[in-house]
Amino acid sequence: MNSIFSFLVPIIVGISLYFYPAPGGMDTQGWHLFAIFVATITGLIFKPLPMGAVALIGMAATVLTGTLKLQPEALSGYGDSIIWLVLYVFFIARGFIKTKLGIRIAYKFVQWFGRSALGMGYSIVATELFIAPFIPSSAARAGGIMFPVVTAISESLDSHPHDSTRRKIGAYLHKIAYNGNLITSAMFLTAMAANPMCQSFAATQGVQITWSNWAVAAAVPGLLSLLLIPLFLYFVFPPSQKRFDHAPAMAQKKLSDMGQMSGQEWLMAGVFLLMLGLWIFGEPYGISAATTALLGLCLLLVTKILSWDDILNEKEAWHTLIWFAILVTMAKYLQIYGVVAWFSTMVSTLVEGRDWMSAFGILVLIYFYSHYFFASNTSHVSAMYAAFLAVAIAAGTPPLVAALGLGFCSSLFSSMTHYGASSSAMFFGAGYIDIGTWWRLGFLISVVNLLVWFGAGGVWWKILGLW
Amino acid sequence: MNSIFSFLVPIIVGISLYFYPAPGGMDTQGWHLFAIFVATITGLIFKPLPMGAVALIGMAATVLTGTLKLQPEALSGYGDSIIWLVLYVFFIARGFIKTKLGIRIAYKFVQWFGRSALGMGYSIVATELFIAPFIPSSAARAGGIMFPVVTAISESLDSHPHDSTRRKIGAYLHKIAYNGNLITSAMFLTAMAANPMCQSFAATQGVQITWSNWAVAAAVPGLLSLLLIPLFLYFVFPPSQKRFDHAPAMAQKKLSDMGQMSGQEWLMAGVFLLMLGLWIFGEPYGISAATTALLGLCLLLVTKILSWDDILNEKEAWHTLIWFAILVTMAKYLQIYGVVAWFSTMVSTLVEGRDWMSAFGILVLIYFYSHYFFASNTSHVSAMYAAFLAVAIAAGTPPLVAALGLGFCSSLFSSMTHYGASSSAMFFGAGYIDIGTWWRLGFLISVVNLLVWFGAGGVWWKILGLW
Repeated sequence: MNSIFSFLVPIIVGISLYFYPAPGGMDTQGWHLFAIFVATITGLIFKPLPMGAVALIGMAATVLTGTLKLQPEALSGYGDSIIWLVLYVFFIARGFIKTKLGIRIAYKFVQWFGRSALGMGYSIVATELFIAPFIPSSAARAGGIMFPVVTAISESLDSHPHDSTRRKIGAYLHKIAYNGNLITSAMFLTAMAANPMCQSFAATQGVQITWSNWAVAAAVPGLLSLLLIPLFLYFVFPPSQKRFDHAPAMAQKKLSDMGQMSGQEWLMAGVFLLMLGLWIFGEPYGISAATTALLGLCLLLVTKILSWDDILNEKEAWHTLIWFAILVTMAKYLQIYGVVAWFSTMVSTLVEGRDWMSAFGILVLIYFYSHYFFASNTSHVSAMYAAFLAVAIAAGTPPLVAALGLGFCSSLFSSMTHYGASSSAMFFGAGYIDIGTWWRLGFLISVVNLLVWFGAGGVWWKILGLW
Repeated sequence: MNSIFSFLVPIIVGISLYFYPAPGGMDTQGWHLFAIFVATITGLIFKPLPMGAVALIGMAATVLTGTLKLQPEALSGYGDSIIWLVLYVFFIARGFIKTKLGIRIAYKFVQWFGRSALGMGYSIVATELFIAPFIPSSAARAGGIMFPVVTAISESLDSHPHDSTRRKIGAYLHKIAYNGNLITSAMFLTAMAANPMCQSFAATQGVQITWSNWAVAAAVPGLLSLLLIPLFLYFVFPPSQKRFDHAPAMAQKKLSDMGQMSGQEWLMAGVFLLMLGLWIFGEPYGISAATTALLGLCLLLVTKILSWDDILNEKEAWHTLIWFAILVTMAKYLQIYGVVAWFSTMVSTLVEGRDWMSAFGILVLIYFYSHYFFASNTSHVSAMYAAFLAVAIAAGTPPLVAALGLGFCSSLFSSMTHYGASSSAMFFGAGYIDIGTWWRLGFLISVVNLLVWFGAGGVWWKILGLW
């Protein structure tokens, strides 16, 4: 893309919005932040400079215009545990790679499922489905478990980031793993941190969400999504190599060449199992996913599986720290400055007087696609779920359909951007998929998911008697 | 040092303190944090692992023991603008190096003053003295101006960090530049961010500190310190090469080889002058030192003087981010948990009933050396200055002597540790001086400074009629 042009577009977008009068009822400061946020996102897409630089300039703009104070506002994202969970998991993934445990697991995968690209795709989503009910942090599950394995599988099949081999298989598998994570997050109350928030918001409005009514309602559309998305990507974003007939034999050979697991690998496996245990059982004891990852990282440092230099060399982690924290901060202040509340009020006037189906349809679409303006599921749910649920119920939507439907959206809507969930920062950060492709595919997947969940899902909910 | 031993010492120190009952009147949580803080510092000194790893383990200990919540407490340091000022300045210093503007200025320095190590030392403190009254952020002055120049001078004389050439001249000059910064910070009300805080705390106790009574009282001990410290270090920490008779001619030759300044150098100089202007004039308009550095960094990225990869490769900056933020956080919570207040109360009972001279002497020593437990001047001043001033005045110390004396300490006390001020993180981070040496010399310098400021200074204040 022409470089002057790519510089000018975000600047023009930002300045035009900034100096355009704030719409009635919206605070000027909120409007200014919105302008800078949109300009920053535009900059991320047109890419006059690398992502981190664009984000830093966006942050500088918020500070220099007086929209955010540097401290405690603009820098506050750097103190957010979401960000550090992502960083810790990046570092831990390096331990998988360094000890060769990652590649060993990857070879096992390839040995069993590696004959075809599609087979590997399905085996990845199956793994996700298997562990999702037990690990309430989708970011930990995606980043701490699937991410290092998927990266190792790609590498083992000679598909590397940032070069011409990335489309061979790596890009395909990364996109599948990411979306598999989102779909399984939507399938179980205990598969994603914001799902129990939905449950409690719904409870205050008299709607009883339970582990089982959630899982039952999600089962059919969820399984359908898990079946469809790998196939869909297989056609719209095909891996350039589809058959790997010799791969299982190659993997078996490599495994026998590797021999027994080394002491370092056993240590890595031990730390991993400990983390897995804490991710499954830790939350009730106040051990958050990020704390578990921090503990795991410390153990890898103490056991010298990771050297400090490994940490400092993990450039993609540092890059993610810079841009992701800034987007999280901006999204947070869009909410604090009342932009989200203003928007919710607009929406409720929009659906007034409609029948419940079209009202709920509009609400779902707006709830879903407004995730372009959020950098975490949790903040989106806490900002909008309760308001949208109230409007939907008031419009006559059967309460449980409204509560669960919006709940399912609360994971699925992250497919669209590379900052929509903590896990997106990792899978995108791996470098297999460029930003334009990520967004384009993300949008297409969102359409497929909406059709599956509210089309086939709607039929299923009718059968279940939910409406 | 034996590796098992170096692992055990901080653990034993930490556990012993942690399980020892909290002293009367101190909150248990505060005591636990104190134990972990001391263990972390012990770990930094015994170094079983690199500094960042030790700090991370310390942080994990605060979280796993429930002493600090991960969010918003333990991670809060990462949102502190002090930390990011240091990082931005690290990146900007890379621009000085990359454009060769740094080395050009360094050659100029060497051409004029480079005949002897001592001459260079004095020329560095003279430069500091010249700019100190105008730049209220000592970290910006140290990191943004002196640091890149001193590093470039060292490199130009073939003295490099982390190898056997570091003692040639680099270690000596870095230590001088750092301490020159502290001394000049103590000399002018407008040379350090916490000085005006002292002024306002003193005012509430009826003591009138002005720009000129501060500067006059500081002039004699300040100049004496600036004369003595380079000489003192020359003997206790000598550069291994003392004469550089051919250096000025070499520098002149190099300068003529370099030819005219390149476009990039002019750009770098322009950004630098803009930052200098904002550092001098920006604060009253709400543009903090960190905001200025952020703006400078963005300009260097937009002009492509710095590539994004330069940022990601700046490993020392990322390392500093990790350890410095954690120490800043722990020190902050020692204050929030009332450890500092408890300590101040202890001190006031200690000096009860003494004559003012010995009372003030004890107060100064305690105020000064308690900086081992602080990671910023500002937090130390805000935690202890007012209380100690009140006790000193109550004990009969002439109020202006008490107010100014404690004010001078508020910069000088940072000599002791590598985390005592933001600028220490930079000069230490340069890698010319190992941690043991840094601490040992820091303590010796603190003794010299106390003797100069309260010995010779005391005489001077008598002549001025302050007591």
